[in-house]
This record gives sequence, C-alpha cells and structure tokens, in this order.
Amino acid sequence: MTTQQISAAASFIQDFILDLTSHLPCIEVLLPGAGTARYSHDAATVKTSAAAQEPGPAVVLPTTAAEVQAAVKLAAELGITVVPRGAGTGLSGGASARQDQVVISTEKLNRIIEVSRLDEIAVVEPGVINAELNKHLKPFGLFYAPDPASFDISSLGGNIATNAGGLRCAKYGVTRESILSLDVVLADGSLISVGHRSIKGVTGLDLTSLFVGSEGILGIVVSATVRLRPLPVARGTVSAFFDSTAEGARGLSAITLSPVRPAAIEFFDTPSLENIDAHSGTALRARGAALILIELDGYGINEQAADLTAALTQAGGRVTLETDDDGIRLWDLRRNGRGFPQDKWYIGEDIAVPKSQLPRVYAAFPVLEARFGVDISAVSHAGDGNLHPLITKDKAADDGAHPPAVLLEAATELVKVALSLGGTVTGEHGVGTVKREWAALELSERSREIQHAIKAALDPQQTLNPGKAI
Amino acid sequence: MTTQQISAAASFIQDFILDLTSHLPCIEVLLPGAGTARYSHDAATVKTSAAAQEPGPAVVLPTTAAEVQAAVKLAAELGITVVPRGAGTGLSGGASARQDQVVISTEKLNRIIEVSRLDEIAVVEPGVINAELNKHLKPFGLFYAPDPASFDISSLGGNIATNAGGLRCAKYGVTRESILSLDVVLADGSLISVGHRSIKGVTGLDLTSLFVGSEGILGIVVSATVRLRPLPVARGTVSAFFDSTAEGARGLSAITLSPVRPAAIEFFDTPSLENIDAHSGTALRARGAALILIELDGYGINEQAADLTAALTQAGGRVTLETDDDGIRLWDLRRNGRGFPQDKWYIGEDIAVPKSQLPRVYAAFPVLEARFGVDISAVSHAGDGNLHPLITKDKAADDGAHPPAVLLEAATELVKVALSLGGTVTGEHGVGTVKREWAALELSERSREIQHAIKAALDPQQTLNPGKAI
Repeated sequence: MTTQQISAAASFIQDFILDLTSHLPCIEVLLPGAGTARYSHDAATVKTSAAAQEPGPAVVLPTTAAEVQAAVKLAAELGITVVPRGAGTGLSGGASARQDQVVISTEKLNRIIEVSRLDEIAVVEPGVINAELNKHLKPFGLFYAPDPASFDISSLGGNIATNAGGLRCAKYGVTRESILSLDVVLADGSLISVGHRSIKGVTGLDLTSLFVGSEGILGIVVSATVRLRPLPVARGTVSAFFDSTAEGARGLSAITLSPVRPAAIEFFDTPSLENIDAHSGTALRARGAALILIELDGYGINEQAADLTAALTQAGGRVTLETDDDGIRLWDLRRNGRGFPQDKWYIGEDIAVPKSQLPRVYAAFPVLEARFGVDISAVSHAGDGNLHPLITKDKAADDGAHPPAVLLEAATELVKVALSLGGTVTGEHGVGTVKREWAALELSERSREIQHAIKAALDPQQTLNPGKAI
Repeated sequence: MTTQQISAAASFIQDFILDLTSHLPCIEVLLPGAGTARYSHDAATVKTSAAAQEPGPAVVLPTTAAEVQAAVKLAAELGITVVPRGAGTGLSGGASARQDQVVISTEKLNRIIEVSRLDEIAVVEPGVINAELNKHLKPFGLFYAPDPASFDISSLGGNIATNAGGLRCAKYGVTRESILSLDVVLADGSLISVGHRSIKGVTGLDLTSLFVGSEGILGIVVSATVRLRPLPVARGTVSAFFDSTAEGARGLSAITLSPVRPAAIEFFDTPSLENIDAHSGTALRARGAALILIELDGYGINEQAADLTAALTQAGGRVTLETDDDGIRLWDLRRNGRGFPQDKWYIGEDIAVPKSQLPRVYAAFPVLEARFGVDISAVSHAGDGNLHPLITKDKAADDGAHPPAVLLEAATELVKVALSLGGTVTGEHGVGTVKREWAALELSERSREIQHAIKAALDPQQTLNPGKAI
C-alpha cells in the first residue's frame, strides 16, 4: 500500500493504516472511500441511495484474534476510535461509523471451530451467520436457539453484541442464555477469556453476561462458546383467529393461564394481517381480524395442542391445528410476508412490556393515531411481551427530505406508554445511536452513571464504539 | 440504646450504632457480642462449638430499603466495611464477618410483595426463604425454578448473591435466568433499579446479570422481580443402576444423545450409594454400584420415559420408571439421605466440567485417593456437569486442631483436574473467602484486573464485602 493510495484519508487514519500494514503485511484493510460506503451505517441508519454514496471509513477485516488485538492496540495508541461491526444488520445504529473512525469488521472471522454433541456446545467465531450455524448443526441433531428475524443475514457476533432476541425466546431465552464463554479483545488490545465451557460456573463477577448486549463498547468478541439443544422430537403449529385486535390481545392471557409453554407465540393485529394479504396475496383477513400464531415443540404435541385449543377457544378464538405444510407457510408469512411502506414515512419500534400489558399497548394505538395523525400496527413476540410497532405517515408534498416531527413525537409517546406499563424502550434491538434519548427516559441518572463508570473502568480512553448504547 | 451497653465494641462501631439509632430510632440493631456469634460466619466457615462462642459483629436488621440505604451510607461515611448477609447458609464464606465490620442482614426484609399470574412474576424482598416462595406460589399453579439443595433454609437474596444453582438448572437455568429486575442499594447508599418487569429488555449494559452472583461486593439487593413458570402437568422419576461408577458415568452421555431433556439428572457413585444406605437404612447398593436418578416433567412423560429407557438400557443401565411414591422417596434420599463424616476430616467441593468430562473426573478420584491417602466420592448434578466431591481423611491421634495439609492438597489437585478439563472451581456456591486461591488458578491476571476495576467503579471506597468473591 502506498501513501498515494491512501492520501484521501485524514492523516491520522493514514498513519493507522500504514503502521498496521507495515507490521501485519497480510492483514486486509479497505481504504476509506466510496468502496466502504456501506460500512458507515447499519440497517437502522442506512441512508437514501444518494447519500449512501458518501465515502465510508477505513475498514479492517481481521481473520485472527491477533489481528483484532493489533488493530485495537494501534488505534488506542493513536487515539483513533474503533467501531466494531458484525454483519451490519443491526436495527439501532450500533455499527454506524464516521470517516474519522476505524471499523473493525468481524465478517472474515467466520469459522465454526468445533461442535461437541456430548457437551452440547459449539465454538464459533463472531462472523458466522446465525442460519449457517444451524445448517451446520442439523446433521448433529442439534440447534442454536436464538433466532432473531435476521437470522439468515445476521452474524453471531452481532447477535451477541445486541443480546439479540427472536421468536423462540419465551421458551429458550435470548442470546445471553445461550452464551457460555467468550474470548474478548479489550480496549487496550489485550485478550481475555470469560465464562466456561461448562454449563454452570460462578467464579467471580459474570463478565460473560456483561459483554453480551454491550454493543461493542466494552470489547470485541473474537470467539464464543455457545450452548446448543437437541432438535425437538416434534413440532406443531396452532393458529387462533379472533374478531378484533382487542379480543386477540386479550386472548393471549389464555395461553399464560394454560400449562402449555409454546416455543413461539406471535400476535398479528388487523393492519398486520391486511399488510400480509396485500403483499403476499393471502387471505388471512378473511379468517379473522387478529391472529395468534403458535409453534409447539417437544413431546406430547397433541396433548399440548388440545390444552391450548381448549384455552383459546374459551377465550373466543377460532383455533386450528395446522397441517405441517400450512404451518410452514404461516411461519414464512410471519418472517417474510409483510411489505414495507416505501411510499410512506415510517419508524419501527422494539418496545417490550410485561406480557399482561399487551392489550393496553394495542389499545393505545388508536388513541395515538387520532392524536398524531399517524397509522400504527404491530406484530409482537407475545410470549415475552416484545412488540415491533410500525408507525407510518403518508408523505405530503411539502414534507421535504426529512420525516415530519410528528412521526417521532408519536413514536416517543408510544415509548412512554411502554415505560408507564413497566416496560422497556428496547426488547431486543439495542440502544445504538437511535435510541439513546429514549433510553434516558427509562434509566435513572444513577443507573446511567454506573453504566458510564463500568465503561470507563474497561475503556478509560473511550476507544471502543464511543457514543453508543449508554 | 446507651453508650454503656455498647461500650464493649470498638469506638468506631459504637459511633456507627449511636449515629444510626439516633437518626432511625426504630431500626433494629444487634450489639456486637456473644449474641451475634452466628453472624461471624456462614455454613462454610462455621467453627467448632467452642470457637463459635466468640463474640460476633454488630448486626443491622433493616425492614425497609431506606434503612438499608441509611446503614450503608453511614458505614461508608465512617469508613466501616459492611458485610451483606442473607440466611447465612452460604458454602463459601461470602458472609463471614469480623468484629470491626457491620453485618447488614436482610432476614427481616422478607415480604412477598406481589405475585402476577398473567406476567408470571413475583416481586419479593431478599429475606424470603426459597421454599416459602414456592409454598406461596403453589395455589397460583406457578413455581420458582432455581432450587439449591438449601432451598428450605436459604433466602432469595442469598440465592441471588451467589447465582445459586440446584438440581433443575440443566432444564430451567440457574438463578440468573429467573431474575428480571433488582432494586439494589449501592456502596454510597443510593438506590437503583436495574432490569425490567418485562421478560425481555436490552436498554444499556446488563447490570441485573452483573449484580446476580456478585456476592455482595457491588450492592445489596432489597427487592427482586423473579420469573415464574407454570407447574408441570406431570412429573416422573426414572432410575438407572449400573455395575460400576465408571459405567454409570459413561452412561450419562446416553441421555445427552437422546432427545429427552429431563428437569434433573443426578449421578451417584458407589461410595455415595453406600453412604445413603448406611445413613438411611436403604438398600440402594443392592440394586447397583452407581445410580443415575432422573426427573422428567411436562407433556408426554411416557414417551419421554420410553426414549430415555431405550437410551440408558443400551448404555448398560437397569432402568425403572419409578412409582410416584418411590420417586418421592429417592429424591428425598438425594436431598437428605447422606450422612456427614463427623469423625473424619473433610472438604467439600463444587467443581463443574463440560458434561462429557464427568467420566474423567470420576476416573481421577482413585488416582488422587492413592496419591494423597484420602477418600473421594461425589454426587453430581450431571445434567450440567456440576459435582460436589467430598474428600475425607480419617483423623489421626497427632493431627491437632487443623485438618492435615494433605486434605487441602488433594482438594486443590482435584480443582486442577476440573480446570484442565475445561471446567471451573465453583459451579454454584461462589468464591467467597474459601475459594479465592482456587479462583486465581482459573482466572487470568487481566480478567481479575477487570473484575477489580468494576468493583472499584461501583465501590471506590471498598465498603461492601471487601476481600470476598474476587
């Protein structure tokens, strides 16, 4: 690499690249510029097609932990801040990077190092794509449970950084519950191992849980030992249609009061069903105005389905134990069936509430719609009270390039509704850059002080992903 | 309270008591002396009956969070260190206290504040006894899963402080997996809430998980929102007897390779069965030389039992689906059936290993027995690879008052075996005071630095439980 090639970059970025590549001639570095535009944002902060052409930051693509260590150490020495990056599918701006920062992408640290059937673990590098791991595990009769909707494209490192959730969390837990140990490069370039290959272990403070969900501000995960589970002996899909969103939302408590604990419970309100029908050519709305879609797994599927059918029928639902084919089709519609309103302004949310409060959240939608002149609908991971409201507003001729303020006002009001019901501003996507103001509504001053004190203890120079998460 | 009454205490302890009680006349304080002897130790550090009469420390028994705050704040101002204490059943010395320290016991903060069937949570104070919570929950059709062997006598606050495990952890997780939010008094007396009443939530760093298992060095929990589960529709007990400890230990992998995930899997080696027979008048040894005892729960018990029976029979086990009565009897023997060797020197351990390595740990016992002239046996929570080896040595006439060094040497060697197999020095009891040297064998220098940095960030004056856990 010549100085000429990188002359477009700021001089301290030039120094970084020259120094790093002179010590590690094989390390892959992408020069800042048009070729790295996609590294300046994640899925939450992606810009319009014109703005997406703005030149991006310098990107390091390490293939070993030692390369990560060298890059972080050098950045710290030069006072350059580092943005750790997984697959860039994050929904909170946690991987947004400026031109004066260096991105360390873990996309090429992507080996599945080990699968142990007898320990029920896999040792993986952070760049492994969630779905790729599960493909690899299938012949072993095992699976990795955390299944964010992005599982086809998101990496385990990103899943760990955000403590990603998904559809099966109510039964199998979020990412944290599947992480046994981590190798982490700290802000000074040192490498530590935390946690254990054993399922249990309480030696000292639980640093593993602290790194999970820390959005790259405490360290960069370079290896993870994840817990696996045997593929269930059977699966079954139950649908329950209701006559209104409100009835369906109230019907959810029938599941809680039953002894059945499904692997996944997804709730669709009326606009969500209409959206799927319009986008996918289905006729779900003809079956009802709200849908609870349930995946059962494990032993005694028929007994589980019978108990659940009794409970949901009693609650006013029209319940069907779907055929395998219909079940697959419905879950595919859940994951891929909706259209995004490209012709409208929109904000997506990730609030979570205690699950008894879901009916109240849905009841708040029409109130906020009337107040702010927006449309709101949500599919929810109802088993754990996590909703993804989509707040939309038709575009007007005089709107200009930015969404009207009322859209954000409506979104903020909905966040406040969730908080007032004992909930949280982010159930599974993380704070990143886009939810910091909402996070301040949730966390007390003293709680934020403690978070900053921990950040300062681990990264006194604020090298790693400053301005994110906390 | 008069100065005369407390004149036996060190002057700074006197100042503390006078100041605290003058501001809070209703707060309950036990003066240091013979009456507080039991507060100087926990179940790990309890002394012989003579030494147990040594005078104990001053003890504060708050009944409100505000009283905890006042006591901690005052102690910090006076430079006195505080030992938080639950029910004193800990097995690592985490609640040991000296005469120059103040114990804050949460035993009278013992209200069950709320049970919500629809949110599947309970809000409890830390002094609630684990078994009392479950008695209270039974009419709701719910249970709190973490079940340390001490559940009849240990408090939830202590369970949280140690991230206690138990028998059902392989299926339901350890204490951490059941804690949704905590109210915590910090080292400066401030009170923060961390976590959420919702099941999911990723706003900021996961402080809830950090406090769980922190052994009172980061804060004192004054309230917890815990996750509950529906009582299973059915339970069943399966026993599998084998012809030797080695065969039984190898048989455990048959469970892992089967699709069944029991609620509990306990493994008994030959000496453990002989111990129970001698202590409880049973004849387990006549049925075999090793026992895998399994609790199944949930739907499809018969199908689960059939799959498990096939797997364990194939592995050489003699498998029985026990009657309900026999099942209850066997589980009671597991919990209460063994005798402790009062006439011998002994050390108990709490190692955990990746579960495939359990046969190797048991294979190490005879090697260490021969090398050190001790006896070793263990019952294990085999579902998660956590063993409780008991290392004993006959008392000799010239032993004196302290156990012979060889006992600790054997114990340390066994810890090293666990570590060499990818395990940990403590699966569920914690480090406390008695395992700090072993913890140093497990954690790297840099990892311990990080732990101390976090401690310093939250408790710069080292007010809370100094010298414990890390």
